[in-house]
Amino acid sequence: MLNRRIVLDHRPSGLPTPDIFRVEEVAVPELTEGQVLLRNRIFAIDPAVRGMLDDVKSYMPPVAIGGLIPTMVLGEVVRSRHPDFREGDYGRAFAGWETYSVLSPSQVGFENVHVSPDLPMTAYMGACGWSGITAYVGLKRYGEMRDGDEVLVSAAAGAVGSVAGQIARLSGCRVVGTVGAADKARIVTETLGFDAAIDYRAEPDLGMALDRAFPDGIDLYFDNVGGATLDAALPRMKAFGRIPVCGMIANYNQQTEPFPIRNLWQMVVNRITMRGFLAYEAADMVHEAEAALAGWIRSGELIALENVATGLESAPDAFIRLMSGQTTGKTLVRLDQDVSIFPN
Amino acid sequence: MLNRRIVLDHRPSGLPTPDIFRVEEVAVPELTEGQVLLRNRIFAIDPAVRGMLDDVKSYMPPVAIGGLIPTMVLGEVVRSRHPDFREGDYGRAFAGWETYSVLSPSQVGFENVHVSPDLPMTAYMGACGWSGITAYVGLKRYGEMRDGDEVLVSAAAGAVGSVAGQIARLSGCRVVGTVGAADKARIVTETLGFDAAIDYRAEPDLGMALDRAFPDGIDLYFDNVGGATLDAALPRMKAFGRIPVCGMIANYNQQTEPFPIRNLWQMVVNRITMRGFLAYEAADMVHEAEAALAGWIRSGELIALENVATGLESAPDAFIRLMSGQTTGKTLVRLDQDVSIFPN
Repeated sequence: MLNRRIVLDHRPSGLPTPDIFRVEEVAVPELTEGQVLLRNRIFAIDPAVRGMLDDVKSYMPPVAIGGLIPTMVLGEVVRSRHPDFREGDYGRAFAGWETYSVLSPSQVGFENVHVSPDLPMTAYMGACGWSGITAYVGLKRYGEMRDGDEVLVSAAAGAVGSVAGQIARLSGCRVVGTVGAADKARIVTETLGFDAAIDYRAEPDLGMALDRAFPDGIDLYFDNVGGATLDAALPRMKAFGRIPVCGMIANYNQQTEPFPIRNLWQMVVNRITMRGFLAYEAADMVHEAEAALAGWIRSGELIALENVATGLESAPDAFIRLMSGQTTGKTLVRLDQDVSIFPN
Repeated sequence: MLNRRIVLDHRPSGLPTPDIFRVEEVAVPELTEGQVLLRNRIFAIDPAVRGMLDDVKSYMPPVAIGGLIPTMVLGEVVRSRHPDFREGDYGRAFAGWETYSVLSPSQVGFENVHVSPDLPMTAYMGACGWSGITAYVGLKRYGEMRDGDEVLVSAAAGAVGSVAGQIARLSGCRVVGTVGAADKARIVTETLGFDAAIDYRAEPDLGMALDRAFPDGIDLYFDNVGGATLDAALPRMKAFGRIPVCGMIANYNQQTEPFPIRNLWQMVVNRITMRGFLAYEAADMVHEAEAALAGWIRSGELIALENVATGLESAPDAFIRLMSGQTTGKTLVRLDQDVSIFPN
């Protein structure tokens, strides 16, 4: 049995291009004791992968030349030599862009996912998966969100931002999102129910736009981007404002010359707390987050915004579109047309 | 009775110069009910005053042209129309550069200070006053200091840094300080007992100096300066590193063009928590801090590093020397030679 996989051909400089990836076929190895074979159904495409393509220190080791591109997958167990997993089980794991993955659940994170017939399977890779969990723990734990907070969310039409803004709204906050296009501003307000959106590309002065949106200042800034948006938000935080930092995508394409932040001294002026976090490390809150997110999706109060491409070979292009800022919602790749979005 | 006072003649641009201040004499007003008259004995000169000399938003309102320069004073009550204070009491208050202050203790912060005969009176304005309290709560609460932490302190020969490094040492941490002169490096290691000091002006590359001082990374960076030191520390923080931010003096003289921080995206890589804080707002910890600091000073384990000028008219020069980075320890002004350093 053959496994098709996408590996790193050479390192990118700046924005990734299709030529840095190549497809190869290798045999699927026999399982050894304790392993499972996953047939991958959905990839979650994540901007954090960008950092792993460079040969620099990050919270994940860099991808080797010729190495598999890492990704979160949702797959179906098709063979098992592990006592806890059976054929037909679904699971989420950090694997790679490949059709089959051989995993040792006791060595890598492998979560059994009980796919529910009343949720689309893609939701487990987006709004009810790690994107949604990131939004939830970022606001509630690292952002100490309170009822009535005035909340700013950057990359508000993105995978995490789109959920974060909706959770803030559902938690009694006023929420404003920043986006990079007029159509995204419309999605954020009309589809997702944000109180307002700022299209930063249409604003001659982002700070003045924030002044208009937050005449009394910002209690909580859920930061997905860093860069100019963070710099404009810092002087507009209220006293004791909180900035959970989920990502600084503005820098992922330009690590040698990241955007210069000039207003950080406002940390003292406004006694701001800023926290970088990874949702995986708030393990004790995951079940609470999943239950809340699934409930809101089922009731229709939370929209799971997604863009889905089809076929293993579409993964590089989906990643490049994500990094160029053209996408809305969670970027997913389903591996073949016959992945039923609603299982059974 | 005449009150001599120093007021703002005009606003500075960049580093303050003596001409921006002028001395004036006004009559001491009669007390009204609820007021006390303080004869000021010691001023604490604080870099935060720099921000108040500009006409911009800060955590304190700007000083008006012709207005009194704000400062923390230690004074003796010489008249009282307040039931809780009697002549001969000592108190600490946020007043101004003037020989006498009329205060309403119920309206402004006025703390009775029980000056102890076995501590120098100046300590209540430095290592056992708000500088020491700032160091204590910054490390313990906002920096979540733990036994065994590897701690970096910037402005390590300064009023707060000199105490912070000693508290870290006394709490079982390894501590390295950054300073801006060779003689300060010697004071920090030989007098204050830091494990090492880095003279950043003598280092061609501050980052490489930090790499040598912290081969395994930094757990806690007590930031007094912001700017280039913060930027060099960010990529060298361990996972879950903490950065309590007490001040960003690097920016106080150049608010229109603050130092650009380029490594802030390391907040996510290293899941850093950074907190701007004011010690006054950790009110519930103040007694614990004062007791610990007084105990360490009495036992000789903690050195109260001070530089003391004499006479009201020396205040502008003391402030200018402080802002130019030439001082070590707490910068104080005692108003006349007959202030006994040890009361009684």
